[in-house]
Amino acid sequence: MTTLTAGLTAALPAVPLLPEDGLAQQVQQRLDQLTKPLGALGRLEALALQVARVQGTTHPRWQAPQLLVCAADHGIAAQGVSAYPAAVTAQMVRNMLDGGAAVSVLARQHGLALTVADCGVAQDFAPRPGLHIAKVCRGTADSSLGPALTAAQCVQAVANGQQLVRGLPGNVLLLGEMGIANTSAASLLMCRLTGLPLAACVGRGTGLGDAALAHKLAVLQRALHCHAQVQGPIALLAALGGAEIATLVGAVLQAAAERRVIVVDGFITTAAVAMAAALVVPGAPGAPSAVLQRCVFAHGSAEAGHGAWLRALGVQPLLDLGLRLGEGSGAALAWPLLVSALALLDGMASFAGAGVSSASAAAAGLADASGASGANRANRASGGGDVA
Amino acid sequence: MTTLTAGLTAALPAVPLLPEDGLAQQVQQRLDQLTKPLGALGRLEALALQVARVQGTTHPRWQAPQLLVCAADHGIAAQGVSAYPAAVTAQMVRNMLDGGAAVSVLARQHGLALTVADCGVAQDFAPRPGLHIAKVCRGTADSSLGPALTAAQCVQAVANGQQLVRGLPGNVLLLGEMGIANTSAASLLMCRLTGLPLAACVGRGTGLGDAALAHKLAVLQRALHCHAQVQGPIALLAALGGAEIATLVGAVLQAAAERRVIVVDGFITTAAVAMAAALVVPGAPGAPSAVLQRCVFAHGSAEAGHGAWLRALGVQPLLDLGLRLGEGSGAALAWPLLVSALALLDGMASFAGAGVSSASAAAAGLADASGASGANRANRASGGGDVA
Repeated sequence: MTTLTAGLTAALPAVPLLPEDGLAQQVQQRLDQLTKPLGALGRLEALALQVARVQGTTHPRWQAPQLLVCAADHGIAAQGVSAYPAAVTAQMVRNMLDGGAAVSVLARQHGLALTVADCGVAQDFAPRPGLHIAKVCRGTADSSLGPALTAAQCVQAVANGQQLVRGLPGNVLLLGEMGIANTSAASLLMCRLTGLPLAACVGRGTGLGDAALAHKLAVLQRALHCHAQVQGPIALLAALGGAEIATLVGAVLQAAAERRVIVVDGFITTAAVAMAAALVVPGAPGAPSAVLQRCVFAHGSAEAGHGAWLRALGVQPLLDLGLRLGEGSGAALAWPLLVSALALLDGMASFAGAGVSSASAAAAGLADASGASGANRANRASGGGDVA
Repeated sequence: MTTLTAGLTAALPAVPLLPEDGLAQQVQQRLDQLTKPLGALGRLEALALQVARVQGTTHPRWQAPQLLVCAADHGIAAQGVSAYPAAVTAQMVRNMLDGGAAVSVLARQHGLALTVADCGVAQDFAPRPGLHIAKVCRGTADSSLGPALTAAQCVQAVANGQQLVRGLPGNVLLLGEMGIANTSAASLLMCRLTGLPLAACVGRGTGLGDAALAHKLAVLQRALHCHAQVQGPIALLAALGGAEIATLVGAVLQAAAERRVIVVDGFITTAAVAMAAALVVPGAPGAPSAVLQRCVFAHGSAEAGHGAWLRALGVQPLLDLGLRLGEGSGAALAWPLLVSALALLDGMASFAGAGVSSASAAAAGLADASGASGANRANRASGGGDVA
């Protein structure tokens, strides 16, 4: 797989770490002048700060938010690892475009432009508005028997994802996916990328019972064994992944390179982000990933493994609503919070402008009355947590 | 306080438990026919079900959502229990009406009609759009020295809250508050209503330091001691509460009686709801409160004590973002999720309508293939949680 890795690495866009200039401090000062106790907006303040850094401005704005749903089929579905038949992938692509899927409803509610990409669905679709054809296969091969994608397919899918994002307007990309059996692909990638035991990476997907879950675990164990010698993120992506995941990897890399904010949905989109992060993390172990700096994790999925994966990445999702749907539904549900974060930074009055008194240093318990409340700052730094 | 209690009880509207008719089952059937795995929308499905029950229809709709912010001053502020001077209450009322407060920004974002009620602010305001005058005092008395409100003031404030809601359109009420030192009043009520130790009920409010927090605790201990003989929720409300909290109690009771959905913000609005629930809970211990049946808890506040109070009430908030602002900001931030819950129920296609295959009973691991997945049902019943 050396050729594949080398070829792909050359084609990948550069994603540098965000600069450590004075921008964060300037945005923090803006936040601290707003008519609220210091840090009282909790994680929305951290979110505004993050977006400002990604956009490289003290006055961040959202432009033309895009929701991209990548769809593909998986050969491993033939092993009975999903509660739904593989035909559902194509049916749900049509349902999304017809406006009847959950993500369609949420995109309408929030004015999100929805693009559905056929990255490797087993059936073909007639051209129609909102559908982007970026097909590298009609379903992957069965990864429990051999590589899911050929090297050429994997390279093409990543390139397709980059190309797709280059063709979309806006400065924020919400990610979603559809693919019967793709929790299996994501679990396999999680196991190899994190080093966690397979059982900690496998869940019920769309709703397996206990016996079917045990069967899924056994099938995935075989797939791991089949590819035990495969090394490196790109080679793993081809062997264990899927066409929609590889396309999402390209989309993430391109969006990150363009400094778009990336809103990550659930388990499968986390796989794409983790893979993209693995591809561009600079040398130092534990260094913040340039990709993760641009990502907002929308929700913690009820799919087993997602929580552990988010912890392994060192990130915290905005929502925790027991969702396990995919499609970008969690990203769409979290979107209003991202809008709020910037609307508050932009629309709230300052203490001076509104004639509101700021905190009394005495009551805040400070010996030093020269600045804003140090106790509040400490409270904010600890995530706004309170100690009684 | 017998007269007060008796007089108030007579004036309070009836809030019966929601009927146990077949409605919940009908709504569940609607949810289960939508093109998603059973239970895959997690808590949004429970939310849609709850709203349907409150509205008494299988096809719930939101009408004219109202955000009501009740404001008042607190005599106990003179004891130095807040990081901000008492003058901030009036300043923030003006800021909310001028559109510069966090809740103003969020109400604009979400199209929520905002009403600010002066329930007992120390300063007077000229009439202006969006301001409702329902004043029972110019700040309460200091509850560490005597009752915060007289019996007459408390009765009047509760009646004002009922009257206020009767004058508002719509079928959903989002609650907020503003009042320097009102976390102190809420902590005192929490301590008496839950029986938890005072230290577990007291937090840093708008941002007290360690020394100031210790001082606040000592002041509240004195207030508890001062009113140790007071019994019954209404008498406690007068002795320890505040004009905005009492007005909110009336608003909650009226909204509950009219079967409006009530969206509860943070620590202080939880005090009003807990007090309202205590007033109408039927005899049986542990019975679900008729008031709580109508309440959606928007977020878990970073204010110490809020988490424990929500657990004591047996409820779970939608958001957990480290907010500690009040004003109804958390309720406004959660509002799009409530909109989504009904939009999904209403706007998603059914499996039959969209031509999407439903789950395979075999893969779901069922011996009985006659119905929808029992494993999915079990998964949904446990909150969508997954076991690997």
